[in-house]
Order: sequence, then C-alpha cells, then structure tokens
Amino acid sequence: MRAAIAGASGYAGGELLRLLLSHPEIEIGALTAGSSAGTALGGHQPHLAPLADRILQDTTAGTLSGHDLVFLALPHGQSAEIAGQLGDDTLIVDCGADFRLSDPAAWEHFYGGAHAGTWPYGLPELPGQREALRRTRRIAVPGCYPTAVTLALFPAFGAGLAEPDVVVVAASGTSGAGRSLKPNLLGSEVMGSVSAYGVGGVHRHTPEMEQNLAAVAGGPVKVSFTPTLAPMSRGILATCTAPATPGLTAAALREAYEAAVKDEPFLRLLPEGHWPATSMTLGANTAALQVALDERAGRVVAVVAIDNLTKGTAGGAIQSANLALGLPEELGLPVNGVAP
Amino acid sequence: MRAAIAGASGYAGGELLRLLLSHPEIEIGALTAGSSAGTALGGHQPHLAPLADRILQDTTAGTLSGHDLVFLALPHGQSAEIAGQLGDDTLIVDCGADFRLSDPAAWEHFYGGAHAGTWPYGLPELPGQREALRRTRRIAVPGCYPTAVTLALFPAFGAGLAEPDVVVVAASGTSGAGRSLKPNLLGSEVMGSVSAYGVGGVHRHTPEMEQNLAAVAGGPVKVSFTPTLAPMSRGILATCTAPATPGLTAAALREAYEAAVKDEPFLRLLPEGHWPATSMTLGANTAALQVALDERAGRVVAVVAIDNLTKGTAGGAIQSANLALGLPEELGLPVNGVAP
Amino acid sequence: MRAAIAGASGYAGGELLRLLLSHPEIEIGALTAGSSAGTALGGHQPHLAPLADRILQDTTAGTLSGHDLVFLALPHGQSAEIAGQLGDDTLIVDCGADFRLSDPAAWEHFYGGAHAGTWPYGLPELPGQREALRRTRRIAVPGCYPTAVTLALFPAFGAGLAEPDVVVVAASGTSGAGRSLKPNLLGSEVMGSVSAYGVGGVHRHTPEMEQNLAAVAGGPVKVSFTPTLAPMSRGILATCTAPATPGLTAAALREAYEAAVKDEPFLRLLPEGHWPATSMTLGANTAALQVALDERAGRVVAVVAIDNLTKGTAGGAIQSANLALGLPEELGLPVNGVAP
Amino acid sequence: MRAAIAGASGYAGGELLRLLLSHPEIEIGALTAGSSAGTALGGHQPHLAPLADRILQDTTAGTLSGHDLVFLALPHGQSAEIAGQLGDDTLIVDCGADFRLSDPAAWEHFYGGAHAGTWPYGLPELPGQREALRRTRRIAVPGCYPTAVTLALFPAFGAGLAEPDVVVVAASGTSGAGRSLKPNLLGSEVMGSVSAYGVGGVHRHTPEMEQNLAAVAGGPVKVSFTPTLAPMSRGILATCTAPATPGLTAAALREAYEAAVKDEPFLRLLPEGHWPATSMTLGANTAALQVALDERAGRVVAVVAIDNLTKGTAGGAIQSANLALGLPEELGLPVNGVAP
Repeated sequence: MRAAIAGASGYAGGELLRLLLSHPEIEIGALTAGSSAGTALGGHQPHLAPLADRILQDTTAGTLSGHDLVFLALPHGQSAEIAGQLGDDTLIVDCGADFRLSDPAAWEHFYGGAHAGTWPYGLPELPGQREALRRTRRIAVPGCYPTAVTLALFPAFGAGLAEPDVVVVAASGTSGAGRSLKPNLLGSEVMGSVSAYGVGGVHRHTPEMEQNLAAVAGGPVKVSFTPTLAPMSRGILATCTAPATPGLTAAALREAYEAAVKDEPFLRLLPEGHWPATSMTLGANTAALQVALDERAGRVVAVVAIDNLTKGTAGGAIQSANLALGLPEELGLPVNGVAP
Repeated sequence: MRAAIAGASGYAGGELLRLLLSHPEIEIGALTAGSSAGTALGGHQPHLAPLADRILQDTTAGTLSGHDLVFLALPHGQSAEIAGQLGDDTLIVDCGADFRLSDPAAWEHFYGGAHAGTWPYGLPELPGQREALRRTRRIAVPGCYPTAVTLALFPAFGAGLAEPDVVVVAASGTSGAGRSLKPNLLGSEVMGSVSAYGVGGVHRHTPEMEQNLAAVAGGPVKVSFTPTLAPMSRGILATCTAPATPGLTAAALREAYEAAVKDEPFLRLLPEGHWPATSMTLGANTAALQVALDERAGRVVAVVAIDNLTKGTAGGAIQSANLALGLPEELGLPVNGVAP
Repeated sequence: MRAAIAGASGYAGGELLRLLLSHPEIEIGALTAGSSAGTALGGHQPHLAPLADRILQDTTAGTLSGHDLVFLALPHGQSAEIAGQLGDDTLIVDCGADFRLSDPAAWEHFYGGAHAGTWPYGLPELPGQREALRRTRRIAVPGCYPTAVTLALFPAFGAGLAEPDVVVVAASGTSGAGRSLKPNLLGSEVMGSVSAYGVGGVHRHTPEMEQNLAAVAGGPVKVSFTPTLAPMSRGILATCTAPATPGLTAAALREAYEAAVKDEPFLRLLPEGHWPATSMTLGANTAALQVALDERAGRVVAVVAIDNLTKGTAGGAIQSANLALGLPEELGLPVNGVAP
Repeated sequence: MRAAIAGASGYAGGELLRLLLSHPEIEIGALTAGSSAGTALGGHQPHLAPLADRILQDTTAGTLSGHDLVFLALPHGQSAEIAGQLGDDTLIVDCGADFRLSDPAAWEHFYGGAHAGTWPYGLPELPGQREALRRTRRIAVPGCYPTAVTLALFPAFGAGLAEPDVVVVAASGTSGAGRSLKPNLLGSEVMGSVSAYGVGGVHRHTPEMEQNLAAVAGGPVKVSFTPTLAPMSRGILATCTAPATPGLTAAALREAYEAAVKDEPFLRLLPEGHWPATSMTLGANTAALQVALDERAGRVVAVVAIDNLTKGTAGGAIQSANLALGLPEELGLPVNGVAP
C-alpha cells in the first residue's frame, strides 16, 4: 500500500515519515508541502536520510490522488476540501482538527467558522472506538492533549469512579506548537523556562476532552484545562484530577485501571510507586499511566505521559490506519521509548 | 551586620551567598557544611568567585555563634537543636521545614517525629505577616511550592472569590530537590523529560499551602497538590485553580488581584493576555502572576512563576530578614530576571 | 540466537536492550547487573516496557553462559576475567575499554594496570576492519569519542589529504558518563551549561583515536583532544581538524569523503552547505558527516554527529555482532534519528 | 548620566537594560527599536518589570540625541549613519561589528560592503587597551566569540608561549544568534542537540580574533575557528589551542596566566584541576579561565567560559563605557554567576 503525506515538511509530517519508513506494509508515496513545495525534504527533515532527496510537491488533490491512503498534516480548515476531491475509496487520515468534534456549536465557539463534519475518531482505546475504525475510509486523528487526557481518565469514568468536574494541567514539549516561527518558540526563550498559555478554558482541545470523557461517563463532563510549555522538544505529561465518587478505595481505583489497560497494546500502567516521565515514551506509541487516590482531598489523580508527535499524532494516526486497513493494530509502531 | 550560613555547600546556601554578596548591610561570616566541612567553597559554588577560597567549617553552635544572624539551610530536623544553642538575640532564619507548620498533627502526618514548634512565617505578602516579621528573632522560611501557591491564590481567597477546594499542579526545576545524588536527578534522566512525583496528596508542602490559604480564607481550605519535575535548573510554575464563587466576574477577579499586588515590591501582576514564564523571574525575588476566570468550568485559574531558589528560598529568607533587622524590605534583592 | 547482557541496568545496557528488542534474529536472554542484581529491570530502564518485570541476575560466568552471544557493558577491568570463563565459542562483545588498545604502553599510561590484550576492533567502517569482524568470537567495541573522530577523519587520512597533527574538540551528552552519581552530572549542574573536562591530553580515548587514524594514515598521528559536556542526554558532535596537505582543493576533499561513505550503510555525508546536528542521529546508528577546507587557515575541518549510545556504543556493538554472526550488517539497526 | 539604547527589543538590548537598571550612575533614557517601535517594552523583555510600560521609539538620531551616552545594539551596517548624526560629545557604544576591524580588506572579505572605520576596541583586558578607552567617545564592543578567545589566549601570546597557529572550537548558547525567527533557532530544533555552523573559516568573528591575538603576539596569528550551537540560552565555552613554543613547561604556562589575570577584576583563573563551565558566569561579567599544556600533542589548551550577553556583549560594553566616563571600571557589573 502506498501513502501520500500532505504537510511533509512539518513536525507531524516528519514523524509520520519516520514511522512509515519502518512500516512493513506501507510504502511512502507523494510528499507535499505548502510554501516549501519544490524543495528537497532533506532540508526540512534532516534526520530522515533515506528520503533526503525527495522533492516536495504542491498539496493538491492531483498530487495526493492515486494512493491507498493519504495522511493530512495540515493547518485546520484545509482538510475538508482536499478530502472531498480524493474519492471515497482512499483512506484519509486527518491529523488536523477539522473532523474531531461532533458538536457544531463547540466547533464554532473554539475554532470559528463552519463545522466541516465528524469523522470516526482515531483513538482505538476509547471504548467502542476500535470497531468504528475497522475498515473506515475516514479518520480524525485526536489532538495530542485530548489523547493524553482521555487515556488518563477513561478508566475512571468508564468505571464510574470519578465526578465529572475535571481539572487538567499538562506540560507539552515545544514541537506541539509545530514549526511556526514565533518568538516565544525560539530556543532562547523556551530553554530553562516553563510557561503557561491558553489559560482560562480557551484552549481548543478542551471540548474534545469533554466529548471523549462524556462518551465514557455517559453524561456531560466539565474540564478545566491549562496547558504549559516545557523546555523539551517532545512529550506531554498531563496531570488529570477529578473528585472521587463517595466510598472509592485506592484498591478499587487501581483495579479499574488494570482492567482498562489489560488488553491494550499501547497502554502501560506503571507499577505502584512509579510515576510517568515523558522520556519513557519518547518516540514510542506508548502511553505510560499511573493513578492515585488522594484521600485527603477526595480526588482521583491520574498522570499520563505520551510523545505528542508519536502516540499524540503520527503514531496514533498509523495505529488507526492499521485498523482501517485490516492490518495488525501494532504494525510498525515502536513501544519502547528512546531513553535516557 | 554579619551573617553565618549553615549548609553553605548546597543550592539554597549558594543562593543565599550569591544574594548576600550584593547586600549592602550584611557581611558574610562563617560558612558551615556537613560532610563537606574542611573543603574550600569554590569546589561547591564555583560561580561565587569572591568566596572561592573560604573553607567550610563544621555546623556547630560554636562556629555559628557570634553572628548577628544565622541562616540555616539544613535538612529538616536539624534546626531546633542548633537554634536552641544560639541564644535569643541572634536572628535565626530557618530555610528548612521544622518551624513552618502550626498544627502538630499535620507535622507528624507529613514529616513524622515530634513537632519542633512554630516560628513567624517568612512570607511578608501574606496578610498580617509583615508586621509579625518586624523585629522577630526567629523566621521560618516558607517552602518553595507554598510560596508560589500562596502568592497565586491569596488575592482570590482574601477577597472571598474562590471556594476552598483547590487543585494545584506545579512544575519545578531540579534544584528544588537539592544537590542530593539520586539517579532520577541526573542530567541524563531529567533533560528532555517532564515527570511526576509525590502524587496523590503526599507531598510535604501540602499542609503548608492549606495552612496559608486557610489563614486568608478564614476557614479550612483543601488542596490537591501534584508536583512535577521539569528539565530546567531553576523555577516553579504553579497552576492553581479553585471553584469561583457564584456570580464572580472576570473584572472583579482582576480587580482583586490588582489591589492585592499594588503595594507589594516583589509581586507583579502581568498585563492581561500575558502569562508567566519562569524565565521572567530567574535569579530574581519576583513572583510573576496572572489570573483568569474560566467561565465554562466555573473556576478561578491563577498561574505564578517564581525562582525556587530566590523568592522560593534564599531571596524570601533575606526579604524577611530585612524586615526583622529593621532594614528596607527590598534591600539587596534583585527584581529583574536573567533572561533570555 | 540468544544474547545475555551484563550491565543491563546502565545506559549502555539499556540501549543494547532497546535495540535488541527490535532485532529479528537475536533474542534477549539473561540480564545481569552489579549492585542492582535482584531488582526488576523496570526500575532502571522504565522506557523498556516489555522487559519491566525481568529480574537482574548477578554478573557471573554462570548466569552469562549458555548464550550464543554476550554483551559486556561493564566498567573497564572486569571483562577479561568474565571472557576467560565463557568459552571460545561464545561471541563476546565488550563495550568496555579493556581490549581496544594494541599498545600495552598506551594502556598503562592512560588506564593504569596490566593490559588485558587486544580483540578485533568493532568499527566496520575502518578500512580492512569489516573482514576482521566476520565470524570473530571476540569484539572490542570502540569508545564513543573514537568512533566519532575516526569516522570524521578516516576519509581524509585514507586519501592522504591531511597532516598527522589533529585537533579535536567534542561535545558529548551526559549519558556518555554513564549513570554514575556524581555532583557534576546532576541535572541542576548540567542544564544550561557547557563545561570542559579531561583537558590537556589526558582523556583515555585519545590513544584509541591515534591508533585508528595511524592505521589509516600509515604512520603515527598525534591527536590533541578536548571533550566537553553539553546539556543534552545523548549525542556527540566532534569537530576534527588537521592541516591540509599542500595543494589540497575543496573539490578533492569532498570527492574523497564521497568515495569513503559511498557503500557505507551508516555513514551519511550531508549535502554541501548543511552541517551535522546530533538530533539528526538521535537513537540511530548513523553518523552524519560534513567536511570543509579552511583555505585561510590551511586546515581540513570535519564535523561528525553520532548518538553516543547508539552508533557510539550499543548500535556499533550490534553492527559488529551482526557481522560476526554472519547476519546482514544493518539488521535491527535504525538509520533515522528521532527528531525534532 | 542618561543612556539611550537603540535596539532595546533584542537580546543584547535587554541585557544592557538589565545591567543598567542596577547601575548607580547611569539612568535609562530613550529606548528605540526597529519594527517594534510603538509597542511596550514589556512584551519584548518580560523579565524587566520596572520598564514594562516604556514605549519603544523609532531608532533615529532625534530620539537618541540629548543623552550622555548611546548604546547601539543594531544589525551591522546601521551604526555609522546614526553615529555621524549624534555629535562628537556623545559617548557612542556600538555593540555591532561595524567599527571592530582595522583592516578594510578583512571587513570586505567577511562582511562585504565598505568599511566604516575603526573605533577604540572595547576589551580593556587586551594589553594597552584600557588606556585607549579612558575618555574616548567611541567604543566598538567586541564580538562575543572574539571576547572569549582573546581572553583565553592573550596570556599565552603575550608571554610568547604559543605559536601563531590557533585552533578554536566554541559552543554558544542560542541567544548569540539574536531573536531572529529562523527555523534552526526554534526550541524544538535546538533542545537536545548540538550542531555546527559557519565551518571552514567563514565565521565573521575570525578576523577579529586574529587581529586581537596578532596585537598581543606582535605578528600575524592564524585562527581556524569553528562555532557550534549548544542547547542553552546563554554562554560560550571556547576551547582554544595553539602549538606550545619549544621547551614550555606547565609551570611557566600557569605562571603566565596567573600574571595576566592578577589585576583584572573580571578574569578568573580557576584553581588547577578545575575547568570552566558556562554556568559559572551566567549573567555575570566574568570570564572563567583555565589552561593546560598537552605535552603529548605539544599544544597549549586554554578554555574559557563567558556569558555571551554579559561579558560577551552588554557587560563588556558597560565595562568599557565606565572607563570612558571616568567611572570605576567594575561599576554596576555583577561578578557572580547565577547557578545552578
């Protein structure tokens, strides 16, 4: 099978390519870009030696057509038009936000403009979702933060152990902001410093978290989400808390998490007393989880580490694509982090 | 006035010395250490050229006596005995935890062993506290996390704008853990990685936060606190949220914060739309604050950045010592961060 | 084939395991350690989920015997005794220094104590070396710095384009120092700082560089080597200069490098105008090279980036082991870096 | 005395302001910028709370005139015109390159365009230079790399202990590249990675190093210079080597360095066995030096650490300005680094 990648010069595109280069069943086809079209990939992704001489093409339906699958790693708002031109038989995996939200009002509130629609949501670990992804031709890859937060809390909400009043604070590496040339993303500014941004319930990933957790909880879930930027290239560490339901015990909580991750190839509940670090998952499609019951404060505290570019974007995209293509879900996806 | 520093080979001790070297009214006297006694300071604090040849003495009442003030930067549990031997006239500034908590039960629960007592708490910004510090001879310097969290939330609780159900997630630089030789503090482990620790309400700074906020709120405050370790040497960024009281408006919230910081030399409320970064306060005794009302989630979200070694330890210690000595509170304390 | 790893709790051991977990022909057998024997691997290598529950055994001939190959990742001085007890049929791959140097005087000068002997040197790219490695049962894995420097300069010396008066300055990530608990390796000390160490010709890797380059140059080569420690976990960037032979042109220099890397699976000469960054090779067995002729100063300047744990240790070890086992040289070894 | 700062929104400008805020004799006057004119300084220098509300003006002779001194932190090529309009009585301190080189041919080769002239060179430690700076009205602040390299090697060349065939490899923090929005300066690219640039004798600071060392050596000095970019915001660590003159002993070498730094307020020769780290000098106007004789390779190896923004730019500028203004040379300049 041949895959085209739209947005191959960006960080998400680069991670898709890194993973696909090791994928035994997917061959890399056309690579496209926006303003970098016409240049060699090597100037943008110098870590991908085998593709260094590949020339980036324009992102058009013409260059992307004729592939079995197309990964879109584009700014939001650009996927719908491309998708409409590619035909129903092509598997389209959208790493952008366009088709993630089911509620048009939430879309309009957080993104503005018209809602493009809703595609099957590429988070196989979400209960019921794996089946929806098998043999679909359209996949909306989750946002990196919602991936982390949903994986941290679905076991608690799925088992009815938490109240729907969630507080999340997450630290992300700078690659989550993409390759955009903004002063606050310069190395000089981010090294040696942690900063907050998007505070006060305004981050666009908030309604996506609420949508996922509500699906598991069977009712609305309110999320207070604060993202922070940490001095590292990759990784998300999300601390996710919610009031414990009355009478919850630490043992019952752990049992629920053990049950939830038991058959999941990419979820790893750490042994008791160990806590996630993003380095555990660097370059891997794994989510490292731990949970505790804070009995004094009456809260469930779940912590999760992922690589925002791997499980949080490109790895999650390929995992879902594997399902849609009828391939083994784990195919071509690393489970071990590159550490130290 | 001459100051002795006990624990001069550690990070808190080094920061005390860095600041005192620029203090116009305090001269540096005896420097003591534990296992490093007998060695030159230069091997431990290579950034402090003027003191490089000073030899560290043993930490005994004998070496510390005869000074106008004594800073103790020792592991907890060692301050009471030393203090008892130094006489009531000496100003003793304890950077450790021994005398911070007023509730013996909280002490025993979180630290174990017998409670040593309670000293005036060295956080002048806490309402009423400045007066208590003037001309005291004993100061309990706050913990770094409680400093950050208290400064972030006292305006809200002082004005009755938040419910006493606080969730705090904070990222700290590694110097907060001191110079202890633990594998998880090695550069290879911490660089490129954010990790959680002390999750589930077990961190020892939790009751200190609750004590401070309760004093402002006029009633018990519950804190769910999760610390994380970020890949930087210095700095704390704390995200502090609490349910907003019914009817709270963003304007009223901001007004309360503006009023609270108005006359404070080391508190800085950022302009609207700007958010704290720890680099703003690197090496400075400043706390950079911002606050937002998350109307969807119904929560006050306050974010604060401090340098854990400066405002969070040594700078705060000197600020309180200035008050106790009848000196201008700001004397010798930098307000501008070293950035980028 | 089954491999035992001695020193599995260290950084080199962890990287061997990470790579072997993806190796299609080598199964992981016994894992041994020193003081960590008896504990689970997960506490030491938390990024290697599939092996988390494996218990570390003592490093003895008994636990290591019965495997087709044994990787030794031990402090120097410990390999000879173990090797002597394992039998001639076992492929022993020593990641330590014991068997690298052929000159006993150089060994004694730099390491002290008796010289253990010389094994085939595990750098297949060194002219003539690939054949020596095929089907040997003993491999001395090169040091990380000598790997970098030799790969950077062998094309110049092999083609007679440089005078044997080499100056090398290299920056290494902290993992090169292993997991030893030294104050100068604490995150607080290394983050935000580059430092020098082993200056003045005293670093133990110096004679190994000279030995390799002399073999290519056909005569003695003098190396002035200065290592520095950079604030990153992994990676070596070595800047290697030598006087150009009279009349050398930039074109002839590039041609020599192009010829030298042409058939090498793990050597990559960057396009002109591009310069190596360690991130290009993070987690990969690749060396990224570039060379320039400084006509004003009359020097060849070659720069190389490798991952010190991969091509510089564990990857190079497996590459040579592949040769010795009659497997394809590239088997199981990543060529693409994890970036950004 | 009042100082204007042209280029106040950049990194050099910010460091000038940070230092001037603590300078007892210099008051901060007009602040100007290029495209940021009209905006508040707080958005650019959020670490400088006292100046947050100051509005940046256009960089014109009009806004800069009427001050006792003017610091120019502008891209090269812009200083001459401004200087010509400011009058001979104003002390102009140019942090750019325009007036550093005395050889027009070197200027044209490395910078292109016409040579603007030569101003007194702001490196008081260079023999003879201190006198030239007293009461001058024009100062060319040295480049950051030439500052480091000159301070590392002037003792050796001044004492005739080294041959004029220098090899320098230096690692710089990213702030040395300024606040320019280039992809290779993004945090995601620089964190966790060391990279080379400007290799092969093409870096513009090369002739400046040669000029300085030639002045000390009394004859031409050839420098092979390779800069590298390290994952830190601030700091330069330069490793500088030159062939030792025949018969040189380690004792004679050290003696020469001790003599050279003896009366220098900002030069610090570390005790034997200690090596510079950039953290020792973070935020300080100090250069930390060490030197060794590599007897095997026959080379002097000098290593120096400075903060590129402080001693390497803004601190050095103020040090020279102090001299020109008849103030104590050390006034307002920190000597202790902010560490860890």
